[in-house]
Amino acid sequence: MKPLRVTIWNEYLGDHSKHSPAGKLYPGGMHEHLKRALAAPDLEIRTAWLGKDINHGLSKKVLEETDVLLWWGHGAHGMVRGKVVDRIVKRVHEGMGFIPLHSSHMAKPFRALMGTTCTLRWNENKDKCVLWNVNPNHPITQGVPLHFRLEKEEMYGERFDIPKPDELIFVTWFEGGNVFRGSCTFTRGAGKIFYFHPGHETFPTYKDENVLKVIGNAIRWAAPGEKRDFQPNQKVKPLVEKA
Amino acid sequence: MKPLRVTIWNEYLGDHSKHSPAGKLYPGGMHEHLKRALAAPDLEIRTAWLGKDINHGLSKKVLEETDVLLWWGHGAHGMVRGKVVDRIVKRVHEGMGFIPLHSSHMAKPFRALMGTTCTLRWNENKDKCVLWNVNPNHPITQGVPLHFRLEKEEMYGERFDIPKPDELIFVTWFEGGNVFRGSCTFTRGAGKIFYFHPGHETFPTYKDENVLKVIGNAIRWAAPGEKRDFQPNQKVKPLVEKA
Amino acid sequence: MKPLRVTIWNEYLGDHSKHSPAGKLYPGGMHEHLKRALAAPDLEIRTAWLGKDINHGLSKKVLEETDVLLWWGHGAHGMVRGKVVDRIVKRVHEGMGFIPLHSSHMAKPFRALMGTTCTLRWNENKDKCVLWNVNPNHPITQGVPLHFRLEKEEMYGERFDIPKPDELIFVTWFEGGNVFRGSCTFTRGAGKIFYFHPGHETFPTYKDENVLKVIGNAIRWAAPGEKRDFQPNQKVKPLVEKA
Amino acid sequence: MKPLRVTIWNEYLGDHSKHSPAGKLYPGGMHEHLKRALAAPDLEIRTAWLGKDINHGLSKKVLEETDVLLWWGHGAHGMVRGKVVDRIVKRVHEGMGFIPLHSSHMAKPFRALMGTTCTLRWNENKDKCVLWNVNPNHPITQGVPLHFRLEKEEMYGERFDIPKPDELIFVTWFEGGNVFRGSCTFTRGAGKIFYFHPGHETFPTYKDENVLKVIGNAIRWAAPGEKRDFQPNQKVKPLVEKA
Repeated sequence: MKPLRVTIWNEYLGDHSKHSPAGKLYPGGMHEHLKRALAAPDLEIRTAWLGKDINHGLSKKVLEETDVLLWWGHGAHGMVRGKVVDRIVKRVHEGMGFIPLHSSHMAKPFRALMGTTCTLRWNENKDKCVLWNVNPNHPITQGVPLHFRLEKEEMYGERFDIPKPDELIFVTWFEGGNVFRGSCTFTRGAGKIFYFHPGHETFPTYKDENVLKVIGNAIRWAAPGEKRDFQPNQKVKPLVEKA
Repeated sequence: MKPLRVTIWNEYLGDHSKHSPAGKLYPGGMHEHLKRALAAPDLEIRTAWLGKDINHGLSKKVLEETDVLLWWGHGAHGMVRGKVVDRIVKRVHEGMGFIPLHSSHMAKPFRALMGTTCTLRWNENKDKCVLWNVNPNHPITQGVPLHFRLEKEEMYGERFDIPKPDELIFVTWFEGGNVFRGSCTFTRGAGKIFYFHPGHETFPTYKDENVLKVIGNAIRWAAPGEKRDFQPNQKVKPLVEKA
Repeated sequence: MKPLRVTIWNEYLGDHSKHSPAGKLYPGGMHEHLKRALAAPDLEIRTAWLGKDINHGLSKKVLEETDVLLWWGHGAHGMVRGKVVDRIVKRVHEGMGFIPLHSSHMAKPFRALMGTTCTLRWNENKDKCVLWNVNPNHPITQGVPLHFRLEKEEMYGERFDIPKPDELIFVTWFEGGNVFRGSCTFTRGAGKIFYFHPGHETFPTYKDENVLKVIGNAIRWAAPGEKRDFQPNQKVKPLVEKA
Repeated sequence: MKPLRVTIWNEYLGDHSKHSPAGKLYPGGMHEHLKRALAAPDLEIRTAWLGKDINHGLSKKVLEETDVLLWWGHGAHGMVRGKVVDRIVKRVHEGMGFIPLHSSHMAKPFRALMGTTCTLRWNENKDKCVLWNVNPNHPITQGVPLHFRLEKEEMYGERFDIPKPDELIFVTWFEGGNVFRGSCTFTRGAGKIFYFHPGHETFPTYKDENVLKVIGNAIRWAAPGEKRDFQPNQKVKPLVEKA
């Protein structure tokens, strides 16, 4: 069986300097950390980042060779070029899996795929949070307990302005009184999407084994199916003769 | 009770000339026909069209005074200005109802709200079609039989590249062997959307009493609720003191 | 317009004695309290309870004259007769609205309509809770803020073993670390169902104006639509001649 | 990897005699035919039928050793013992996959899991039908074209009185003017359910390669996940200390 081709994209700004809080936690950047932490025989992982090249490391060729794209962006959503966004959206329609992480709820490709503002409530009070599994038989939750806890995470809360998800996977509780539908799936065209909220860059979230298990499961779940072509509108002949 | 402010937008090209097939069926355009056919004490209906003015009749003010927007476009989707599209999308997010009809499955605001290609299969073989009510207790289907028939309609068929609808209302059967999820609802932000496929301009579809009943019901259903504000991301204080 | 015929059913055990904590809070029982609190010109409300008569006050006639049934049960689910349960289920299929409250998540008619165990996690630690509106444009949430708080409520938490709801309305946060999808809708046959978790009998929950607003909205939302008949299986002739 | 333990249950009445139309098509019964047709190294298939023993071949032990249960019943739904039905429902809640075929829309365990009447419209006019894939990236539709045709099948049509499915997989067109949401998924407890309408016993439907592919895919999709326990209601301690 051919390995799944995964591209981990990271803005790579806050974690760029090794003297920054995020840089200390994730030397070489979160993308390199995730690449190591998710390494497995069935995955072929590469990385890309905003400043890699004119395409942010996501040329047409790279995207065509990507089965599942992970995305971490925060402060520089506005710097991602429209052409690259369009290419990502097209690839999702064709079947590429897409996993926006944490603050990527505001990333251009996610918003274009959702059709909503994707805004939410937030604060950085280092809330404890508990993720509650509401979909225990879903491929994304296998090997993950019915609830797990992160000691510090950025609070993201309702009302989260997303379309009704296809599936709700975890609902998150935050210490300060908030809840969040921040682990949920969508389908757009032939592509599967999983948004997953944990991952503030100044906390060791991507070292948590449950968080990594969820992301790993989601990568396999989001693998493209058989190639299907819906584009463009197709003029077709009747299948059945009329009476 | 204040009447609901409805704007019926029509491309008004194929039905513009009174010598065209559509123009003969709908003198003055489909928008004027629908305005007359849907007239009711609880509705305050105005019309707009592509060539009305630089905003296609949809200035910021008109849209702010619109509770529900009906949309009929076909050949000139590309001519609708991006600025007007953005304004419509924003108003839907704020709560304006949106009812794209027939070939408006490819209209720019609908596609922007869906995040998919919205393509489908089609032919113009004048198929008989039957609309089957799969949601009999929905406000949109009250007063409409469990199935009704149109003698001639443009065939629109699966696979229709839309996100999973919030609700499926009718599923349509076409003579030539096709089916279509062409009557379905979505929510985007605070706005309700109902896509409804019947309405090829060369057939008397908008004179059918069941079609009109469905559109009339959908207008009332899509009325904005209480004003809510999700924009922008909101930094908030904890609601509850931490332990 | 004819008023909506509402029946409020209460087990009426814990609140029966005026010396019990619930009886002190709700003299005459929660059903009588709710009847008074929900009174409105468009509603015609009656009450019934477990010990009223052999049918628990829900004869065939009463149920046929009921448009929307509210249900509060807790300790005596097992005492509700199967015949009455079957009658309720049948009436929901025909279009009667059904609103099980609080501990009625284990009520026989609710479980029969869900097809799941409807079990959950709970404790009686008098948790503060916050209800977060995730469906701001839904008829059930009009006039209710985007979040509201109850100072003391029984904790009900995930994983709640229900089928995927048609709509999630509020998600509830509990002080002790739990979340709950305890405000959600289902359709069964032509009948609309709204489960709503607040209402432990020893807390003044049904005196909270937001809780009452939600229940009042839900009653109107759950009103039966046009009468439809799906029973029994129907042998039908082809609608369209074959080729 | 341990093979998936599949039990194919068949009423085995209409196909019992080798002189009956069904018996000629499926010598030894549809269950034995399906067992042969679905045979694969990753499946361990056994069969059971109504008259096999007092438990219809579905003892507690057999069900506990079953990962996925296929069910074909038609004329004898009423003869299936309540005790066996309860056991099946319980096993689905625990995670056993369940695949009711064709006329099993009226089977007791399916109806108990749905909470609706499951009635529909039907005729035996030997309609041609076309199954349209509306979920092209779903595991159940891999290797199956976007539409496929059966030359003769019993017509089953809307309005099908089921709860809103989790996922719609195929929508079926019938020659006589009907449509049917007869390929759809549900979750109940930890168990996955796929209802699939083709399979009238007097047509060679279960020899069609697309039908067999769908059933084979569905078996793998319905495999139980990790064991989870939701029963009974669980009194739990707070996870987080209160303020």
